[in-house]
This record gives sequence, C-alpha cells and structure tokens, in this order.
Amino acid sequence: MNIRVGIVGISGFGGGEALRLLANHPSFELVYAAGDSSAGKSLADLYPGIASRLANLVVEKWDPDNLPELDLLFASMPTGASAKALAGVRDDVKILDIGGDHRYAGGWVYGLADVWPSEIVGQSRVANPGCFPAATQIALAPLLKDGLIDPENIIIDAKTGISGAGRGGGTGLSYATHNENLVPYGLLNHVHMPEMTHTIERLSGGSARGLVFTPHLVPMTRGILVTIYCRGSATTRQCLDAARACYAESHFVRVTDLPPHTKWVSGSNLAIVNYAADPSRNLVMAMGVVDNLGKGAAGQAIQNANLMCGLPEAEGLDGMSLWP
Amino acid sequence: MNIRVGIVGISGFGGGEALRLLANHPSFELVYAAGDSSAGKSLADLYPGIASRLANLVVEKWDPDNLPELDLLFASMPTGASAKALAGVRDDVKILDIGGDHRYAGGWVYGLADVWPSEIVGQSRVANPGCFPAATQIALAPLLKDGLIDPENIIIDAKTGISGAGRGGGTGLSYATHNENLVPYGLLNHVHMPEMTHTIERLSGGSARGLVFTPHLVPMTRGILVTIYCRGSATTRQCLDAARACYAESHFVRVTDLPPHTKWVSGSNLAIVNYAADPSRNLVMAMGVVDNLGKGAAGQAIQNANLMCGLPEAEGLDGMSLWP
Amino acid sequence: MNIRVGIVGISGFGGGEALRLLANHPSFELVYAAGDSSAGKSLADLYPGIASRLANLVVEKWDPDNLPELDLLFASMPTGASAKALAGVRDDVKILDIGGDHRYAGGWVYGLADVWPSEIVGQSRVANPGCFPAATQIALAPLLKDGLIDPENIIIDAKTGISGAGRGGGTGLSYATHNENLVPYGLLNHVHMPEMTHTIERLSGGSARGLVFTPHLVPMTRGILVTIYCRGSATTRQCLDAARACYAESHFVRVTDLPPHTKWVSGSNLAIVNYAADPSRNLVMAMGVVDNLGKGAAGQAIQNANLMCGLPEAEGLDGMSLWP
Amino acid sequence: MNIRVGIVGISGFGGGEALRLLANHPSFELVYAAGDSSAGKSLADLYPGIASRLANLVVEKWDPDNLPELDLLFASMPTGASAKALAGVRDDVKILDIGGDHRYAGGWVYGLADVWPSEIVGQSRVANPGCFPAATQIALAPLLKDGLIDPENIIIDAKTGISGAGRGGGTGLSYATHNENLVPYGLLNHVHMPEMTHTIERLSGGSARGLVFTPHLVPMTRGILVTIYCRGSATTRQCLDAARACYAESHFVRVTDLPPHTKWVSGSNLAIVNYAADPSRNLVMAMGVVDNLGKGAAGQAIQNANLMCGLPEAEGLDGMSLWP
Repeated sequence: MNIRVGIVGISGFGGGEALRLLANHPSFELVYAAGDSSAGKSLADLYPGIASRLANLVVEKWDPDNLPELDLLFASMPTGASAKALAGVRDDVKILDIGGDHRYAGGWVYGLADVWPSEIVGQSRVANPGCFPAATQIALAPLLKDGLIDPENIIIDAKTGISGAGRGGGTGLSYATHNENLVPYGLLNHVHMPEMTHTIERLSGGSARGLVFTPHLVPMTRGILVTIYCRGSATTRQCLDAARACYAESHFVRVTDLPPHTKWVSGSNLAIVNYAADPSRNLVMAMGVVDNLGKGAAGQAIQNANLMCGLPEAEGLDGMSLWP
Repeated sequence: MNIRVGIVGISGFGGGEALRLLANHPSFELVYAAGDSSAGKSLADLYPGIASRLANLVVEKWDPDNLPELDLLFASMPTGASAKALAGVRDDVKILDIGGDHRYAGGWVYGLADVWPSEIVGQSRVANPGCFPAATQIALAPLLKDGLIDPENIIIDAKTGISGAGRGGGTGLSYATHNENLVPYGLLNHVHMPEMTHTIERLSGGSARGLVFTPHLVPMTRGILVTIYCRGSATTRQCLDAARACYAESHFVRVTDLPPHTKWVSGSNLAIVNYAADPSRNLVMAMGVVDNLGKGAAGQAIQNANLMCGLPEAEGLDGMSLWP
Repeated sequence: MNIRVGIVGISGFGGGEALRLLANHPSFELVYAAGDSSAGKSLADLYPGIASRLANLVVEKWDPDNLPELDLLFASMPTGASAKALAGVRDDVKILDIGGDHRYAGGWVYGLADVWPSEIVGQSRVANPGCFPAATQIALAPLLKDGLIDPENIIIDAKTGISGAGRGGGTGLSYATHNENLVPYGLLNHVHMPEMTHTIERLSGGSARGLVFTPHLVPMTRGILVTIYCRGSATTRQCLDAARACYAESHFVRVTDLPPHTKWVSGSNLAIVNYAADPSRNLVMAMGVVDNLGKGAAGQAIQNANLMCGLPEAEGLDGMSLWP
Repeated sequence: MNIRVGIVGISGFGGGEALRLLANHPSFELVYAAGDSSAGKSLADLYPGIASRLANLVVEKWDPDNLPELDLLFASMPTGASAKALAGVRDDVKILDIGGDHRYAGGWVYGLADVWPSEIVGQSRVANPGCFPAATQIALAPLLKDGLIDPENIIIDAKTGISGAGRGGGTGLSYATHNENLVPYGLLNHVHMPEMTHTIERLSGGSARGLVFTPHLVPMTRGILVTIYCRGSATTRQCLDAARACYAESHFVRVTDLPPHTKWVSGSNLAIVNYAADPSRNLVMAMGVVDNLGKGAAGQAIQNANLMCGLPEAEGLDGMSLWP
C-alpha cells in the first residue's frame, strides 16, 4: 500500500522526528513538507542525516489551498497556531495534529491510541495527546479504570528533557544556563491540565478537580518521567496486575518491576510504567516514561495515523530505543 | 584565631568539598587529612587544583588512637561506617559528622543550623543533616512552625545530581548510562525518611506519619531540588511572608518570587526557597534548592563548625554560587 | 532470505547496538546471544526497550563448542579477548569481529567497507575497523588516494563520547567526575595507531611513520569527531571534489560544505566528512564524524555482514540519525 | 586598602564572573555596575546567589561621562564594542578590558600576567588576553622562550565549553541542539589568531606564519583545553623541566605529569599544563587547561587589576577549583 503523506512544521523537533520515522515506514510515502522558516531549502539542508531518497524534497511555504495530492497530513505547529492554519485543508486529506489546538475539540478524535485504539480507526481528524498527558494518562489508565485510586486527589510531578520546549525555546534555554540546572515551571496552571482533567474524568467517571501538575525542566535533550502520587488502598501487586491486564495486547506499553529509566525508551514509541503502593499510608504511586518526541509526539502520531489508515498499529514503529 | 582541624574521608566528594572550603577559611587551619584509599598520597596528588600551602599535606590512614593535636574533626564517611570509626576519638576533639550515623543519635546535636542555630553553639558532637533533609526541612520549616500545612500529609518529590551518590557510586553510575537519563529510586522507604519525620514532628508538634519521599537521579553533577506537596489553606503570599519572617536574619536562606534553579546555588552554602499555593485545592507547594555538596554537606558542616567554635556563622562561607 | 545470526558480548555497548540494528533487519534472524556477565538473563532483562519478538531469548554463557545452528556470529569482546575466544568457532560459521584482535591479522579481511567493499563480499572472517580508525580512514581516503597530502606528516586530533570506553570503563568514568570535563589520553602511542598506519600506507603507497594520534574524552555519550591536520598544496575545493568523487556511490559517507556536527550522525551508520585547506600554509584539514557505536562499531558490522552474506550493503541500515 | 571598582557588562558571563570574584576580594570594593540590557535592575535580580552586601546595587545604563568616583573599571563587552564605549572614560580611572578590542593596541599593555607580570604593575590601561590565547600562550611560553620548538610550525587544536560563546550566543547554542554534540568552527581564520601570532613571535623572536588554530564547541559549560602540536627535538622531560623552571614562582600555573582535565581548574584562576614529546617524530605536544571564565576572562582580569593597583598578584584569587 502506498499512502501519500505530508508534514507541516518540518523544521521543528516534532516535525523532524516525524520525518525520521516516516523515512522507514513501509506504507507511508512522504511527498510534501512545509515550514515557513525553512521554505525553499531541501530536506538535506535541514537534516544532514536524511535518508537519501528524501534528500532533495524541497520544503514549501505552508498554503492549505495549494496542497499536492495527499492522503494524510501530519501537522506539528505551535499550540495556538494549528487551529487556524489547518482550517482550510480539504476534507479528503486526513489530518493528524501533533500540536495542541484540537485536543478534545469538536470534530476531532482524541488520539490516546494505547487506551482507546478502536476510536481512532478510520477517522479523518485526530488530535495527538500532549507529551506530558501521554505519559501521565498511560500510567494512570489502569488504576482509574479499575477504581484503584481516587480521581479527585492526583498529584503529578513531571520532568522533561529540554527538547520538550521545542526548537523555538530560544535563548532562555541556552546550553550554558540550562546545563547542570534543574527548575520547576508552569506552577499550578500548566496548559496541559484541562486535557488531563478531561481524560481522568472519562476514565474514572468521577471528578478530577483536585488535580495538581508540576513540570520540571531537566538537563537532558529527550525524555519525560512522570511520578504520580495518588490516594487508594491498593497494593503494589494489585497495581502491577491491573496494568499488565490493561496492556496485555499493547504493542508499546510495558510494565516493569523496577522504576523506569527515561533512557529505556529514548528514540522509540514505547511507554514504560511501574507502580509502588503502601496501603498503610493510603498511597499509590504511578510512574511512567516516554520519549517526549516519540510516544509524546511523532511516534504516537504515526501510531494514530496507522489506525486512521487501517494499517497495523505498529507498522514502522518497531525500532528499539537507543542504548546508551 | 587559629583552630586546628582535620578531615577524615578526604577522597570522597564531601571530604573534597570540605577541603575546598577550609582552604579559604580565615580561622580554621587544616592540619590533618585521612582516607584509607588515598593514604600516603599528598593532597596535590588527589586535588590538582589544591591551594598551594596545602599541597604537600600527606593523607594518613585513619587511626583515632593516633590523631595529631586537633581542635575539630570533619568526618565524611559512608553511612554505616562513621559510628564505629569515630567512637574512639578523644573527647577534647570536637566532631562534625557529615555522614549519616549520628543524626538524632544520643549525645549528638542535630545540626540544622538555619533553623536551630543556638543549639549548636559551643557543642562538641554535631551531626550534619542529610542532603535531601537539608533542602526539605529548610523549605518546610516556616510552614510547619506557623501551622500553615498539615504535617501528616506531606509528599516530597526530590531530585538530585549524581554526585549525591558519592564517589563510591560505581559503575552503576557511569557516564554513558546516566547521561541523558532520569530515574526514580529508593521508593517508599528511603534512608533519609526517619530524619525528616523527626524534624517535621519537632517543628509542627504533630505526627508526620503520612510522609512520602521519592528521590530521583538527574543527569547533572551537583544540585538538589525538592518539590513538596502539602495540604493547607494558606495563600502563596502567606507562605512567602512566613518564610521571609522565618529567615529574616539568615545568612544563607533566601526566599524568591520565582521557582528556584539549582544552578543559582551551585558551589555555595545557600538554600533558596519558593512557594505556590491554591486554597481552592487545599494545596500548598514548597520548593527548595541546595548544592548537595554545599548546604547539603560540606558547606553546612563548616557553618555548624563555626557555631561549635564560637565563630561568626558565615565565616569562610560567603562565596557566591558559580554562574553559569 | 533468512540468515541465522548470533551475538557474543551481548551486554556490552557494541553488542547492544548490534542487537538494536538486528532487531529490524529483514534478512538476519537473531537466534543466539552470549555474554558471560549476563548469562541466564533474558534479553528483556538486559534491554527493557527490546523488540517484543526477541524479549524472551535467553543469554547463554559463551562456549564455542556448543553453538546452535548459526550462519554468522557478531563478536563484540574486549580487545585482547576475542582472538582466543573465537579460535574454536566452526569454519562454517562466518564471523564479524567488532573487537580489536583480528584487524590486519592473517586469515581475516579488514572490513573498511566504505573504501574497499568488494574485498568483503562473500568472506567468512572479517575484522571491523576500530572506532577512531573508521572516522579517520574515511576522511583521509580520498586525499591519500589522490595524492593530495603527504602520508608521512599526518596529525589526528580525535574526540570521542564516553561510550567509546565500553561498558567496562568503570568508576574512572563515573558521571560525576566526567560530566563537565574534557581530557586527552593515550598520548603518543594509542592502540589504534598500527591499524591506521597500515591503512594510510596502503592507500598512499608511502610511509606513515610520522603519524600522530591523540584521542580525547568528551562529556557526551555517543559520537566521534576527528580533526586531521595534513600537509599538501590542495585547495578546499580540490579536497571536496576528491571526496565527492570517491564517495559518489556510497550509501553512508556524505561530504558537506560545513564542518560536521557529531549529532548529525547519532544512532546511524553515516559518516560525514568535510575539508578546509590553505595552500599558503601548505595545510589541508580533514574532518570526519561517526557514531562510535554506529559506523564505529555495530553499524559498520552489519554493513560488513551484509557484504559477507551477499546482501545489499545498506540492508537494515537506512535509519536516519536521531535529532536532536 | 579600599579600591573603588566598577564593572561594565554586568549581565554577560564575563561580567558575572568578575562580580563573583570581586564579591570576596579584600581590597576591591564594587561600587558601580553597568549593562544596557539590565539597567534598572538590582544585582539580586540578576544574580540570585549574590553576596548580601551587594544585593541592592542597581545596574546603571553605561555612560562614560557620568561615572561615579572610581579607581578601576572592568569592561566586559563584546569584541568590537569596547573600543568606542571606553574611549570617553576619564584618564584617572584605570581600565582592565576583558573584551577583545585593545589586545596589542596602542596605549594598552597586553595583560599576560603569568608570563610578563612586571609589565602590568602600575599600568592604567591593560587588555586581557582572549580565552583561547590565555591557555595557548601559557602552555607554549616555556617552549618558545627556551627555543625547544619551531615557532613557524604550530598547530593548535582547541576545545571550549559553550559559555565561551557568551550570553549572547543565542538560539544557535540552544541546549537541545548542542547537548550530545561536538563541532569545529571558525576554521582557518579565527579572530584570536593575530593575538597568538603576535605573542608567539615576541616569545620566540621568530615568525609564526604557519600557525594553525581550530576551535571546537564541546557540550559542557566551562573549560578550555588546547592540544598543541609542535616541531622540535626536545624530550618530554626537557619540556616539563622548562615549564617548571618558567613557572617556579607562579601562583597560578601548574605543571603536571599527567594530561590535564578541564575540571581540575573549573571555577579557579589556575592554568595547568603538560607536555609529551617524541624526538623520533620531531614532535612536541603541549597541553593546557583553563576555565574560560576564570584564567580565560575574569580571573585573569582580577590578577591584572591586582598588579595595576600594586596589590599582591594572587589577592582574592586563591579559591580552589570546584570538584566534582
């Protein structure tokens, strides 16, 4: 099968990772790349490590009225920019939006493929989860589905590598000031909270109004770890069993007996989760790691696109993580 | 004044940092250094950046029965080793134990100098707080003293640079596997919990039985950040005011309006704290940063030693942090 | 085609990278893994990011007398260990030795596949070049073949990420002491010099007796950059032209107009070279980057194995580098 | 003694390091700080780790016509900006220019204090050496003075941490793209070459016309290593002896028997040099490490200022390097 795909936002980190994954995908053929800042350059100009057969594809200025023949478009634009930019795309072009504007938006399916895969199959407009929500929701889903934790009292302490801020992060994220440095940010009201609230309520049937979410910037390029503190009387064993049952058929979610390392998933579409509980303190801890550009962005996007196009979910995504 | 001091554990990271600080101290004169693995070497062999006048001091094998004339000994040995190793030291030699064996032990004062300085003045046996407790207790003290949070329901998510594992961390902490990696460890029952429980209960008068503490290993050399989730109805302003009042006379604790960066304190004896609260969620967050080898080990040790010897608390400790 | 392959040295960095590449190879089927330190564990125990279908393969203790049915063995053992360990392998099992013992040894072909591919086709015993020689020789080959530089007067200043020291690098390569640190080592007589001398002499027909080689340990996990100072009167343009002609048919060597970044090749089998010359100083500079575990070890090994087995050279090796 | 000093360029990395060192200097009192981008802020706003007594000093907009009463000004401005900006400063204010505009300029002394200290004593206008020249010239001086190497044939392969690019390095030096990355830059004609040429010729009495200099950007914040390849028939022993004789009285230059680590000098004003030679190849290698912000900028500046003001050379500069 030969499905014609394009990427808009090719010069950003998410767009670049989508390119890397598409370069080896057996069914998707990249025929179009757009990005305002790099229009006119070839992909080889942008990515010296590009696969040879894509090297000469020229980046175009984004113009939804002048798209080539396309079956599917991956959009990786800054949150706030994609809603308007994608409004004019023809209905017969499927869209997978990696950006933030269409999550739980009308007319769009929320693409949490490891939890609700069947909802995505054959769809035409799918919004990728955010990078923090991807890790968080995958770690929490088994506990929420089985009623093992109280949805009203969840505290998420999240840590991300610096590529999570995107290529436009700018001088505030310069090497010299962020190397050997660790800092919390976005206290109390991060932009990813409504999305997570919505998902937690959907999974649990209860209210998530007490949700607390604190991201931290960690001196590494890739990787997200969420350490989540919940209330419940389950044991560690019960949590692990619930997760193993929940993800028994999953291609990408793994449940380990040890706390996960972010490096275990670097460069892959994997999510690894682990749990620790102490009923005497009414405590259930969930931990999850993803690559913020993999399962947290472009890997998840390919997985969703496979489902949208009726392909096997894992096609083109079976690469192992990079170690070390 | 000329006070003769020694260091045992000179080849470890804590001993090395004590050496660095002592080299510029106006009243302490380093006359003795011991360390089994480096006995027979000169300090210049161990530390090529050594101050010239200390370069030729030869490291001795530790033998408490054959100490030179000493007024004060800094002990930086692995937890579990110092109790026995220090038992035979003459009573007239003051001891500051950076290691873990004497924290809240009988006959030893707990050296949380920024909170209880007067207890340390003139003492002969003082135990330094652990690195995580140093950051945690300084951040929580104002809230606990003023009753702004519930001591029974405190969750500490702690992150440390890798030097926190000590020089003996070994191949498990090799560069290639820990660079670009982030991992939680010591889940549910870390060795620092009893010490923090004790301090929280002492500060609050209540029970800390619900305490949760999760450390994480972050790919950087120095620095600790604690992000602490508490229950209470105080506002951000009330928390900041309480902290500013609590530390109005402090040389080393600073209260900022922004979330602190670990790099702001690197190489110094500073602790920087910040708070964020949302009464609608019954949430109070406390954040604190220290250099795990500074305020978390050797800097705190010099501060305590100053108090033990009747010197001004900040003598030899006024160095700014290294930036960037 | 289904070729049965094994890896000995599975727990080392080179063996692990071979595993990662083999997991996606269309013709090689991994049926055997050996490694003394990890014998008895499953691959999933060693590599949490393992491809599912390989997860349950159990690591065996190396025993050349009890190999399963195998077509090809990848050996990734410490230099000094592989000659003896591989001596007993049956003749009908092809061997690709990633380690150092058989480079330019009798009965073994030297596997510099980007320069001399036809020598490798169909062979049964092939020795992979060392990581530094891989980068160096690829950068120098066009200049030496075309007589653009003096082979007697070559100075190689090489820089490697820390994984180059292997998993056994030990505490001397701990994170805390090697982060934010840079150091030369192996001055004057590094173990890779005879191999490079041999290749330079073969390519040029002259003597390489003046060769200087200085490696440096750089605080990053992966990547090698060689900066090579040569004598000759060629211009930058002539050098670039020679390289582009030399590698016109190459799948993996790219010639750029800008100095290469090591990150451009991370995780791939690519080598990127660039040149700068100043005839007024009789100076020709060659620069080359490789991933020390890719083109410098396991990527090169798969490339050689493809040639040994009559497969297309690039099979299973078309993955793009990881960015960022 | 109380000498009133100011800093212009307070928000840059060089200015910030000068501030850190001045905060502990016994004779210099910081009474003035200027910097266009930060005018109106207090030093505590810029530097949360600031010494308390300097916290409230307000940064002013640079205006040479409205300086307060000052004895000495440290100028740390971008190369190309300081010549004009400093032209209007009153003659009775001594100036130490950390920037590049006055090196070997008329009316200015070149402040290579470890080689020519007496030239600086009592001077009013002194230009600090560049960061790369500081390391290079200190390593080469003993060899050039004693005629052990050929001044016409020197190749300098230099490596710097990323703070060397200054705070204005910008998005091109973002964390995500420069972490795990190594790249050469400024090939063939770096801006520091004329300065080094001048010094080499002055030290040797010969021509340095063959000089080659290649800097590299290394993923670390601080530190410079130069690896220098020279021609000469001296032995390693002769080189070490020459260096030890040359620096016998030096406070800051150390000669080691092992290749130096950049981390050995981090945060200090030290330079550490080492040599390796092979007469059979007519090869002499010199290696030197400095902290680019210490001996390569602000540390050297304080050392020069001490000499300009008749103070002991090492006053305020005896801090050990930070380890680890």
